[in-house]
Amino acid sequence: MSVSVSPLAPQVEPVVPPVPGVTFATAAAGIRYKGRTDVLMAAFARGTTVAGVTTRSLCPSAPVEWCRSVLKKGKARGLVVNSGNANAFTGVKGREATALTAEIAARALGCKPGEILLASTGVIGEPLDATKFDGVLQDLSGRLAPEPWSEAARAIMTTDTFPKLATATVSLDGIDVAISGMAKGAGMIAPDMATMLSFVFTDAPIAADLLQTMLQKGVRDTFNAVTVDGDTSTSDTLLLFATGAAKARGVAPLKSADDPRVRVFRTALQTVLADLAEQVARDGEGARHLIRVNVRGAVSRKSARRIAMSIANSPLVKTAIAGEDANWGRVVMAVGKAGEPADRDRLSISFGDIRVAAEGMRDPSYDEAEVSRYMTGAVIDITVDLGLGTGSDRVLTCDLTKEYVAINGDYRS
Amino acid sequence: MSVSVSPLAPQVEPVVPPVPGVTFATAAAGIRYKGRTDVLMAAFARGTTVAGVTTRSLCPSAPVEWCRSVLKKGKARGLVVNSGNANAFTGVKGREATALTAEIAARALGCKPGEILLASTGVIGEPLDATKFDGVLQDLSGRLAPEPWSEAARAIMTTDTFPKLATATVSLDGIDVAISGMAKGAGMIAPDMATMLSFVFTDAPIAADLLQTMLQKGVRDTFNAVTVDGDTSTSDTLLLFATGAAKARGVAPLKSADDPRVRVFRTALQTVLADLAEQVARDGEGARHLIRVNVRGAVSRKSARRIAMSIANSPLVKTAIAGEDANWGRVVMAVGKAGEPADRDRLSISFGDIRVAAEGMRDPSYDEAEVSRYMTGAVIDITVDLGLGTGSDRVLTCDLTKEYVAINGDYRS
Repeated sequence: MSVSVSPLAPQVEPVVPPVPGVTFATAAAGIRYKGRTDVLMAAFARGTTVAGVTTRSLCPSAPVEWCRSVLKKGKARGLVVNSGNANAFTGVKGREATALTAEIAARALGCKPGEILLASTGVIGEPLDATKFDGVLQDLSGRLAPEPWSEAARAIMTTDTFPKLATATVSLDGIDVAISGMAKGAGMIAPDMATMLSFVFTDAPIAADLLQTMLQKGVRDTFNAVTVDGDTSTSDTLLLFATGAAKARGVAPLKSADDPRVRVFRTALQTVLADLAEQVARDGEGARHLIRVNVRGAVSRKSARRIAMSIANSPLVKTAIAGEDANWGRVVMAVGKAGEPADRDRLSISFGDIRVAAEGMRDPSYDEAEVSRYMTGAVIDITVDLGLGTGSDRVLTCDLTKEYVAINGDYRS
Repeated sequence: MSVSVSPLAPQVEPVVPPVPGVTFATAAAGIRYKGRTDVLMAAFARGTTVAGVTTRSLCPSAPVEWCRSVLKKGKARGLVVNSGNANAFTGVKGREATALTAEIAARALGCKPGEILLASTGVIGEPLDATKFDGVLQDLSGRLAPEPWSEAARAIMTTDTFPKLATATVSLDGIDVAISGMAKGAGMIAPDMATMLSFVFTDAPIAADLLQTMLQKGVRDTFNAVTVDGDTSTSDTLLLFATGAAKARGVAPLKSADDPRVRVFRTALQTVLADLAEQVARDGEGARHLIRVNVRGAVSRKSARRIAMSIANSPLVKTAIAGEDANWGRVVMAVGKAGEPADRDRLSISFGDIRVAAEGMRDPSYDEAEVSRYMTGAVIDITVDLGLGTGSDRVLTCDLTKEYVAINGDYRS
């Protein structure tokens, strides 16, 4: 477990104001860790809708399966998240644990178990003893409050070194509504997924199917454009709750994709998702550099994404950045192995604004000392222009350091 | 650059006897490193055939393109290999360098440039000054000898910690012929490729097209079943030379796939390729454990391979093995992200003979202390049974240690 905060953490923790219709509380239930909060319970106003995106792993955790079933109806009254145990690969016992947790939470919040969303993060394969929630959730229901958000974000951390929060305000019908969210995740972060865990809340009144459409669109360039280690989690869950509390302040419900306010809301939602996703990359296990991989000139956007991911997941590129080495040869390697159309003799590569390679060979004009200075920065932009078409994309990742190995070499012990 | 020999190195370096029709010599040409041999030249008897498998990278090195062109004719009289510079992503200059090297070698050996095979390994993107070979290859041609093989294997090393050699003898028409080879490679080792560099030699008389068929078949379960870091090199080259010198001892030429001796030869060739490929995994950069990933019960062999590669390339699985932690939850994760048919509730996982998970959950009978002891061994067998079909496969890899990061974080400097 890492103790010092990532050097890439935001300088200032954002102050998140209350989101009308959302209250929460946290507890130390001793799921796995001693002396730290490991349970978050949130309660939502009647009429809250929910949308979600979950892992594409073919071995999903029990809470992921639970959420998928609840999301079909799109109604939420509560959310229970625990860290320390992922309740993944726990078979029948895992399913029983989710059912029992939802039942306990529903009793505490006075709703139906089918209105409770669940998420778990931590070690895989250990049975989760849901009876531990028994007194705890009842107690939490008596302490629900609209703040402080940093405590909620802290309760869901595992190897994270800082709580991840983001907030935005958007004007609908001339009335401000809030979009605030949290995320956790530092390892087992990979493409083709939602994220580790992220929960976003708004008081805007939005129909569940519209909410789902917006969330799915929002994921591509945010959480799905982040990778730490290429390892997709069994537990990835991103949930977006819309309490509708702003209706009381005169915001008419958003029901159709044709509503011009949808674009306004989506833009703000995108900002929040992108902020949270970038924080996940910034807290990548052992990370010392944030890497932005920009690919241009590909035959399509999809092709650009695959090439960007090939670069972002390459251990050799990531260790080079850790060593502050502008080793663009490894970028060439990663382009070459991506399996996407590429022509060596049209390829150009830049670090920051410094073009180091062009037309299939080293750029004769580049100054090694200048690029070496650039590589000492905290944020490294790698830009690859394939010179083939107009497809472009960007993904975020971090470097691969000895600390990543240390963190993951003795995670269970 | 690592200095100490991998703890996974073979206990004894194999003694490789001469292969009739093959002579070679090495030199320190100062390509990049000072005071170590970095050029190998081999000369082959008239009539030598050659087969080859090269990288599937879409940004191949100049020598790879050169070899592809020579392989079309299937005739070889010489091989020049240098370490220290890969001559990859070097544009027109790279192509000029290969042409000049082949010309110098052809002059030294008294043959055509189109009968010279070339391979380069080392840093990508630096122009290779082929004029450095000028006096050197002429000098080498005066010192050609059938031994010692360990010097040849040493001359092609980069971050390798030991020379990789393997040899076998096979009886054709009652007459012994030799199959001996060498390989280099420790990082940038990945699926979908041949290998880094490997050269295998036999005195059996074998037609070029038959040789090519045998080599292509042999690669799947040997070099293509090895991964160190999932990073496919721009330079991967595996060449198999058949001098035919055994013809003088009465071995009739092998020309057709129907020849019953083909099976005999292929079996021996397979042994040599498998041995060399395993040595590459054993010398994976920073490796402390050799990992054999066995997948059974998949819907097909291809599916089993993909799942095995997903496990073998997972940073989280590899760091867990480095930490001697039987973290089978990460194996579940890697199965889940592979994108191949899998049913969590039918999956079983073993470390060595110890089954740790079955039917979607932890095996209640397994003893943590016993499996912990197993994990301290140098060779770790991970066996996954999907319980779906009869597809099975195996790949080799190594653990991911802090030394891998150290080796690759300051490779260029």
